[in-house]
Amino acid sequence: MVELTELMKNEVFMAFASYTTIILSKMMFMSTATAFFRLTRKAFANPEDCANFGKGENAKKYLRTDDKVERVRRAHLNDLENIVPFLGIGLLYSLSGPDLSTAILHFRLFVGARIYHTVAYLIPLPQPNRALAFFLGYGVTFSMAYRLLKSRLYL
Amino acid sequence: MVELTELMKNEVFMAFASYTTIILSKMMFMSTATAFFRLTRKAFANPEDCANFGKGENAKKYLRTDDKVERVRRAHLNDLENIVPFLGIGLLYSLSGPDLSTAILHFRLFVGARIYHTVAYLIPLPQPNRALAFFLGYGVTFSMAYRLLKSRLYL
Amino acid sequence: MVELTELMKNEVFMAFASYTTIILSKMMFMSTATAFFRLTRKAFANPEDCANFGKGENAKKYLRTDDKVERVRRAHLNDLENIVPFLGIGLLYSLSGPDLSTAILHFRLFVGARIYHTVAYLIPLPQPNRALAFFLGYGVTFSMAYRLLKSRLYL
Repeated sequence: MVELTELMKNEVFMAFASYTTIILSKMMFMSTATAFFRLTRKAFANPEDCANFGKGENAKKYLRTDDKVERVRRAHLNDLENIVPFLGIGLLYSLSGPDLSTAILHFRLFVGARIYHTVAYLIPLPQPNRALAFFLGYGVTFSMAYRLLKSRLYL
Repeated sequence: MVELTELMKNEVFMAFASYTTIILSKMMFMSTATAFFRLTRKAFANPEDCANFGKGENAKKYLRTDDKVERVRRAHLNDLENIVPFLGIGLLYSLSGPDLSTAILHFRLFVGARIYHTVAYLIPLPQPNRALAFFLGYGVTFSMAYRLLKSRLYL
Repeated sequence: MVELTELMKNEVFMAFASYTTIILSKMMFMSTATAFFRLTRKAFANPEDCANFGKGENAKKYLRTDDKVERVRRAHLNDLENIVPFLGIGLLYSLSGPDLSTAILHFRLFVGARIYHTVAYLIPLPQPNRALAFFLGYGVTFSMAYRLLKSRLYL
């Protein structure tokens, strides 16, 4: 058995691992936020979830959508749509031997932009706060994709 | 060309590869389940999907939502929201040199919890069956994230 | 610091990196398409997004769903549901030492199928164009999962 792979001696890869773990943990927090707002605002999607609030017709009134719950869910889905490309492209970029400080700048900007995106979505802040946060994260991922395709295209 | 990378000699990594492939295959099965219920319950999202059930106004009645279809779609989205963090964090955790039996315990609990979550969602079982399955999988991912950030933080 | 990992000397891995970067970039394009149709068709999900189209009641009429916007969003979600398994299973498959030409055939078919799926969804083309594209991508991912589980199962 290989006790510790070479990868974890690579500083870029370790930085990628740290920032990725942070941003995925933040994304997971959105599930808790959805559950919190569903419970406090009594807005559920499944009959079995509100069964202990009453029986039959009485329970049905809790099967509804709520503005705040839907807002958290949209923020969560937007996270998924943007963090999945970061995960894939960032992993391959980290393995492609980039300059350490350039790589860390990319990771920091992405993580910062996505955290600001969530804050701007949930408060909510007036536009273009959320749009700018979105496009900053988007641009960081494209910058890594561009570098990958430019230097190591193999089709 | 490197015939076989060192990674695949690493037992933790091989276990991660096996459990991940199983849980991703399970998630892909949700697409088939959605298609199955859309066809048997005649509830479609796109006009072109029900074109051979009739023309014009006759076809429009199939453009509707169905409780069972929406339930499968929610289970599928919940899978995505939880399996993506497991994929990213689990990969980095596997490369960080954890103890083999601890790692396998994490992977088994996660895969078991997510399969039970799907069963509890689709039958459906009364709560808190689904909630417990959700939080077990959630806790496993956080436990790996915690170990990663504690031992190898590099910001 | 390891200047360049062994992985990037592996041709299968480099091919995986190239095709993955292309298909993830295509998926990211869906966000731009959603934003484009939301702006041109004035159909928004959040009050703050249409604040500069008018105040109060006047702005509320833009908080609506639009067929074209919902179509792009469904195509985007379908991408996520299929590209995430490809990302996870494809990465592990690439590390399992497959034959180079077989691997490249898998990657090319998947990327081609998903691009055709998007075209068939957005125009839209009559069925079964989209269904066939979906099942081709689905089959490619299952073929890689099958090879992984057959050759390297470690539970």
